[in-house]
Amino acid sequence: MKKQYINSLNSPRFSGIKTFMRLPYSTELTDVDFAIIGVPFDTGSTFATGSRFGPQTIREASAILKPYHPVLKINTVDYCYGIDYGDLPIIPGYIEETYASIESALQPVMDANVIPICLGGDHSITLAELRSITKKYGPVSLIHFDSHSDTTDLYFGKPYCHGSTFRRAVEEGLIIPESSLQIGLRGPLYSADQFDFALSHGIEILSNWDIRESGFDYVIKKIQEKTAGHPVFVTFDIDFLDAAYAPGTGTPEICGFNTFEAQKLVLKGLKGANIVGCDLVEVLPAADSPGMITSYAASGIIFDFIGLLADKKRSS
Amino acid sequence: MKKQYINSLNSPRFSGIKTFMRLPYSTELTDVDFAIIGVPFDTGSTFATGSRFGPQTIREASAILKPYHPVLKINTVDYCYGIDYGDLPIIPGYIEETYASIESALQPVMDANVIPICLGGDHSITLAELRSITKKYGPVSLIHFDSHSDTTDLYFGKPYCHGSTFRRAVEEGLIIPESSLQIGLRGPLYSADQFDFALSHGIEILSNWDIRESGFDYVIKKIQEKTAGHPVFVTFDIDFLDAAYAPGTGTPEICGFNTFEAQKLVLKGLKGANIVGCDLVEVLPAADSPGMITSYAASGIIFDFIGLLADKKRSS
Amino acid sequence: MKKQYINSLNSPRFSGIKTFMRLPYSTELTDVDFAIIGVPFDTGSTFATGSRFGPQTIREASAILKPYHPVLKINTVDYCYGIDYGDLPIIPGYIEETYASIESALQPVMDANVIPICLGGDHSITLAELRSITKKYGPVSLIHFDSHSDTTDLYFGKPYCHGSTFRRAVEEGLIIPESSLQIGLRGPLYSADQFDFALSHGIEILSNWDIRESGFDYVIKKIQEKTAGHPVFVTFDIDFLDAAYAPGTGTPEICGFNTFEAQKLVLKGLKGANIVGCDLVEVLPAADSPGMITSYAASGIIFDFIGLLADKKRSS
Amino acid sequence: MKKQYINSLNSPRFSGIKTFMRLPYSTELTDVDFAIIGVPFDTGSTFATGSRFGPQTIREASAILKPYHPVLKINTVDYCYGIDYGDLPIIPGYIEETYASIESALQPVMDANVIPICLGGDHSITLAELRSITKKYGPVSLIHFDSHSDTTDLYFGKPYCHGSTFRRAVEEGLIIPESSLQIGLRGPLYSADQFDFALSHGIEILSNWDIRESGFDYVIKKIQEKTAGHPVFVTFDIDFLDAAYAPGTGTPEICGFNTFEAQKLVLKGLKGANIVGCDLVEVLPAADSPGMITSYAASGIIFDFIGLLADKKRSS
Amino acid sequence: MKKQYINSLNSPRFSGIKTFMRLPYSTELTDVDFAIIGVPFDTGSTFATGSRFGPQTIREASAILKPYHPVLKINTVDYCYGIDYGDLPIIPGYIEETYASIESALQPVMDANVIPICLGGDHSITLAELRSITKKYGPVSLIHFDSHSDTTDLYFGKPYCHGSTFRRAVEEGLIIPESSLQIGLRGPLYSADQFDFALSHGIEILSNWDIRESGFDYVIKKIQEKTAGHPVFVTFDIDFLDAAYAPGTGTPEICGFNTFEAQKLVLKGLKGANIVGCDLVEVLPAADSPGMITSYAASGIIFDFIGLLADKKRSS
Amino acid sequence: MKKQYINSLNSPRFSGIKTFMRLPYSTELTDVDFAIIGVPFDTGSTFATGSRFGPQTIREASAILKPYHPVLKINTVDYCYGIDYGDLPIIPGYIEETYASIESALQPVMDANVIPICLGGDHSITLAELRSITKKYGPVSLIHFDSHSDTTDLYFGKPYCHGSTFRRAVEEGLIIPESSLQIGLRGPLYSADQFDFALSHGIEILSNWDIRESGFDYVIKKIQEKTAGHPVFVTFDIDFLDAAYAPGTGTPEICGFNTFEAQKLVLKGLKGANIVGCDLVEVLPAADSPGMITSYAASGIIFDFIGLLADKKRSS
Repeated sequence: MKKQYINSLNSPRFSGIKTFMRLPYSTELTDVDFAIIGVPFDTGSTFATGSRFGPQTIREASAILKPYHPVLKINTVDYCYGIDYGDLPIIPGYIEETYASIESALQPVMDANVIPICLGGDHSITLAELRSITKKYGPVSLIHFDSHSDTTDLYFGKPYCHGSTFRRAVEEGLIIPESSLQIGLRGPLYSADQFDFALSHGIEILSNWDIRESGFDYVIKKIQEKTAGHPVFVTFDIDFLDAAYAPGTGTPEICGFNTFEAQKLVLKGLKGANIVGCDLVEVLPAADSPGMITSYAASGIIFDFIGLLADKKRSS
Repeated sequence: MKKQYINSLNSPRFSGIKTFMRLPYSTELTDVDFAIIGVPFDTGSTFATGSRFGPQTIREASAILKPYHPVLKINTVDYCYGIDYGDLPIIPGYIEETYASIESALQPVMDANVIPICLGGDHSITLAELRSITKKYGPVSLIHFDSHSDTTDLYFGKPYCHGSTFRRAVEEGLIIPESSLQIGLRGPLYSADQFDFALSHGIEILSNWDIRESGFDYVIKKIQEKTAGHPVFVTFDIDFLDAAYAPGTGTPEICGFNTFEAQKLVLKGLKGANIVGCDLVEVLPAADSPGMITSYAASGIIFDFIGLLADKKRSS
Repeated sequence: MKKQYINSLNSPRFSGIKTFMRLPYSTELTDVDFAIIGVPFDTGSTFATGSRFGPQTIREASAILKPYHPVLKINTVDYCYGIDYGDLPIIPGYIEETYASIESALQPVMDANVIPICLGGDHSITLAELRSITKKYGPVSLIHFDSHSDTTDLYFGKPYCHGSTFRRAVEEGLIIPESSLQIGLRGPLYSADQFDFALSHGIEILSNWDIRESGFDYVIKKIQEKTAGHPVFVTFDIDFLDAAYAPGTGTPEICGFNTFEAQKLVLKGLKGANIVGCDLVEVLPAADSPGMITSYAASGIIFDFIGLLADKKRSS
Repeated sequence: MKKQYINSLNSPRFSGIKTFMRLPYSTELTDVDFAIIGVPFDTGSTFATGSRFGPQTIREASAILKPYHPVLKINTVDYCYGIDYGDLPIIPGYIEETYASIESALQPVMDANVIPICLGGDHSITLAELRSITKKYGPVSLIHFDSHSDTTDLYFGKPYCHGSTFRRAVEEGLIIPESSLQIGLRGPLYSADQFDFALSHGIEILSNWDIRESGFDYVIKKIQEKTAGHPVFVTFDIDFLDAAYAPGTGTPEICGFNTFEAQKLVLKGLKGANIVGCDLVEVLPAADSPGMITSYAASGIIFDFIGLLADKKRSS
Repeated sequence: MKKQYINSLNSPRFSGIKTFMRLPYSTELTDVDFAIIGVPFDTGSTFATGSRFGPQTIREASAILKPYHPVLKINTVDYCYGIDYGDLPIIPGYIEETYASIESALQPVMDANVIPICLGGDHSITLAELRSITKKYGPVSLIHFDSHSDTTDLYFGKPYCHGSTFRRAVEEGLIIPESSLQIGLRGPLYSADQFDFALSHGIEILSNWDIRESGFDYVIKKIQEKTAGHPVFVTFDIDFLDAAYAPGTGTPEICGFNTFEAQKLVLKGLKGANIVGCDLVEVLPAADSPGMITSYAASGIIFDFIGLLADKKRSS
Repeated sequence: MKKQYINSLNSPRFSGIKTFMRLPYSTELTDVDFAIIGVPFDTGSTFATGSRFGPQTIREASAILKPYHPVLKINTVDYCYGIDYGDLPIIPGYIEETYASIESALQPVMDANVIPICLGGDHSITLAELRSITKKYGPVSLIHFDSHSDTTDLYFGKPYCHGSTFRRAVEEGLIIPESSLQIGLRGPLYSADQFDFALSHGIEILSNWDIRESGFDYVIKKIQEKTAGHPVFVTFDIDFLDAAYAPGTGTPEICGFNTFEAQKLVLKGLKGANIVGCDLVEVLPAADSPGMITSYAASGIIFDFIGLLADKKRSS
């Protein structure tokens, strides 16, 4: 297998053009296992905008990553070959046209059996990703880390924004509700019935209080149950993390989770799962700390995704 | 009951004049349950100044709040009508004159049986609030979240500043010491006897180590015991939170608490308590992260106060 | 005339709900001369987003303004009564619907003969303002301070964004090209013909080099010539200022102008002009300095607009 | 003469305890020509507080200064011996007591014939400095760089704050009005008569527009005329500089001056003047740029003061 | 014993020249127990530079410290006399010459039996400190808090940088491997064998996952076992803390520890240990939050070191 | 000629991997006119470090550039084909080895007759660039924009750092002193003789005061005279700009130049010159404003260099 990473023991990590984890920048898809794909779209944001710069800073922060995953005990480059595919064409200010563009731009990636790891952008982009992925795999088990359910019907009378993504996904038949899980929900709601759509369609919800009370092992088991036997799409809204760990996001929520807890859920819950795609969304660099901790957290979680892909290949 | 919040599903949360939680800006007190009241005074600060801008940024951050409280499972607007009363007149640089001004400006609020929720400003303002409140209710049970005891006698030879508030309050008979509790104290002290005044007067102190060792359930029970049967004033110094969760404050302290822990203590400890007033102080925006996490935390805690008021009305 | 400003010698400038210049927050239009109106829309941005928070920070910065204008030597409150009208309803992510909403929301303002002073938001909003204003006044003389011409036909194949506003305005007959002037243009272009549309329609352009070579008196005279005898709309893109004076904007340009130069052009060029509306756009707080100098600059320029309105009334 | 500076060619400028310009930290006043003296007091601020940290960051920024002044063509250490005297005792929150403390703490400095160069703190401190200095020299010619006149009678009904300093100074007979000059005034005023006190007492005012119209040579000549034959006190409010050059201040004003213009006025206007004291005030680090340009500007202007002192000694 | 701290109840904490904890600035070593010593060297950094400013901001943040340690229940000034020794001479850009300079500059400190508490600078400086300390005490038990092992052989073909410090220390016989412990290691590695050197030489490693699984009491016991009977050097890389608690560092790592956990390990693990030197490294102010939480955390941990020294003296 | 830029009218400027001005990322040198080359080395910095991240942020900021230069009235892509060559291999912490690496890595660029445009990094890198370039062209006329002369002999006893670059260049015979010019020097010096080396070797110096007094036309003529008939190397230290225009640099200097003045000197002075190489150094992102104005200024100046290259080709 090709050795894709630049060795940072020879070449300083701060040097060079910023691709994710110093992966080769390429649109050549043959013999590729996964592709890092930016989707710099933030027109779907209902509060703070600016996540269009998320892919840029996640790539910058990813410069400190290295190929061996110490928790999974695997040298990811021994099992997976990945590329940085660049960014998908989007049309700022025009969400429906962007959806069409994302969907068609992902087609060759899907055709090549490459697993897409998308960097948002706001959470509205996930709908287009799901449309593309389900054309290949059919409806997926959705494992959704977030502080918000994103199943509101209409914002300002409009059907598409980052707050309605998963309602649309259910309506379009893109996910298997009873095999899907929303993890980490918290914060004030518009009304008592705000989760009714999700719940009535069979999506299970674990709020922050649920998780603190039932414990992480319970959540891990839930993830395993939901994903068993299905193609899995993992969507990670960075505001799953507490505002102290991810200040750089559009609608930060307090009372959330730290990065170790996130890593534990991702690595233990999804180990062995049949992940067919994933994304990490809502990093908003302009609201981040000068030290860019949100982008570091995002790049670390993405490396966990890569570790899982490598681990899955090792065990198969 | 009047529906006081602007519906953010129709009107974007980032738009409009910044009142707390988009409440109506009003000084009309009839049929009002609670009033958000800014007290932008920071002359009492002994280290970093700038909390006079605290009310402004807390109001900004509160734009993302919504009326339903998911932990208390209550739609607050169904039980409480609140307003944003604006800011009280203060005289920057003149603490004693400001105390008089606060006290008299709170009088109509107290007269109208409206519960004041004050936004600091530094912690010196609480003395004036207590003077006003106790005129109506008599001495109160004080539940005090803070990393500092604020019971030093004199700073620089002077009796009034944010570090002596509760010594003065005891001396003036404003609080019932044995029904009062200081939670979260930590950090180096001037001397071994710095807590002697509080302890000798019967105020119980739970330091961060005490809390870590005894557990949160113990603290919750303590709060319940202290508040039972008394009018309660809750004062929340944002530096109760760890410096990572509340960098935007004048004297940040490490080894503190996260927002989930704060929420748990507030909601479980004070559920059912007879809260007659509360404040949240010491938010210093100039030291906050670009993402304003301290102001988000502050606004979230204040929403917990509102939730408690609604819950109390529901159950009565 | 009503005395509308809060006297900051009695009430500290940092206190209270943030309306522009501490004007009354009101939607009552009778006997009002001008209305400050926020338009927090940034979906039209082709580079950095976030100007939806522009109205908020301009209002905050305006707290230090006072009613007497020392250059025009006029106490503005003696001649004009103004209000802060709040923000117009906009639909984030949907530009055409927002245009319709702005246009209809401005209707009562126009009907009441109130001069609107709009706070952006990105420069796309000016098209909707012009549609509304010209319904009353017919085509206007446009005095356009900017580093960009904003007359590109299509961005990403789409007709509406902040870069095509004035092409659409010409096409829709909203401005009188030969009575319009674009001042301060600079920075690299897509091609040599990028200004062809404007020039071929008769809009005169004064680039930064033109201005440095011809001098400010020449520009002042040009503004006077263009505006003579017409209703005038002044649109001020904050990136007219050099990036050092206005870092908080979406597409900053170097080699620009300082605030004194801007003030000179505004006050001397537009003195006596029949201003029927104006706006200040493209303030992007997340990119501003911690000291918020861009918002201070913006609020100062808006006060110059107010000064001009008062001066016009005095002389008429 | 003692060689007081640490040679930064041998010892890196970023190392060591931060005294101004790496001067010796000492309270020994024998054979000392000038003393850098911090006065970290900001209780007199009517808008943003935080200038109590001004002395700290000015000292930090001064690390890049070196002893030879290239405009005055003088190696300052060949003519002057200076020390960093530390900070004067002040009582935060108590302005009158602080005045007394400053005045008495400056006494030994005055007694030792050492010229004080004070670092603010807000502009209220200058009153106490003048009280102390005039005890030795009698009333002084005041050369006052500022965007504000600071001659308001009462703020919030109180006589002492940073906005009334020079009215009090005139009333107390500390300055010779007709030998005093206020340079750079600009920005909106409370009313047309706000400068009446200064003007009626004979203080000449040069606004920014005056200076732009009359030219810098005129201003230089004015300074020379006013200072001729008198002991001179120079007070430099950093907001004399434009907000783009000094964002880190409490009440920034646009339409101001750049640092070269400031240097020209200081060096040419005050060359040969009998400076008996000076200060630089209103640096507010929390509002400064990450690059601390305001503190760099402040330290540079103070070095110009030192250069003038050395030049005066060389020529005498 | 001399009372070395300035009493901040009399003199405001924000005033004066910034020494650590307001200790006297002195190079006089007689009757001194510990010396705070800056080592502002960052040439050894392989990613972000700027920790040369670490000593400056740690000193600033330490202004809020006070002498009584509430966890150890000891007034440190009753048992220890400390000074701020200033910074050691270093040669930026030249690591081997700097090592020699540090080593010789520490010699008088060691000769005077003063315990050095060094403030980095990057982690490369610890090698020079160990060289100096072991000349007096022989090889030491190393207690190493860090997210990285720093035992890489060569970076860019070079033997000296912050990533190879402890490999060199083992090779030079400066530490007793089997009495040494690396605590908190985490984050991706270059390869599976990256810890082989440390492990094969007998250094025990406790990763973040190890610690979460075995518990803090286990770690405390491990520290006690390793240090028993040996002179101990404690090196604390601030990136031991999670990136949310210490954003201001050169290679932040997520999934780490909070400050309370750090304090618990330091105080309980090292109580009674024979600490002969310690350092705290890798604070990078330019990446810190505006509120400087990393420097506050650093100064707090150093105060724990001081508390341990006092406690040791009390018990001996 | 190949059309090298991505058309930002079709593809949003904020999207994609960040190469300079969206040029192709390539190391293929055939038929290439110029190459943008990062040199992320900051070990030569004597004050603030961190310019190793300069190439990254200059590339990011360059996203807003477009191909047509409005002052030179040329579409640069019609005359020049450029690439982004990535970064040269450097060895952080080891300056002499880095010099050798830069020199050899530039060899193929020189061999291919490609004009290098290097992005620093600190000013020490220019020595290595000159070594490489002069191997091809012989000694060059150096046009040096800077606030510092960089001709100090030794810093801390060492010959190589960013402060001695041009002394070494003269000693090594890399520049033609009498055809070289240092423009913009200002700020305090170590001693009166600090410029003696440069002057005695025939390098002409124009300080900021010289320039303000003689005028820009004089400087332009000087540049033209110095460069006539020689291969020219242009080195632009970003601190030539005033600190307000370039806060993001390691040793900012006040009393400097704005970007328009810089552009005028560059475009008019160097029009037609035989530029064989150039660089722009000392951008330090961590000290820049949140709006990154220093990087915007840097990318704009580099575009002026590209414009000059295109203009030269057009006229030849």
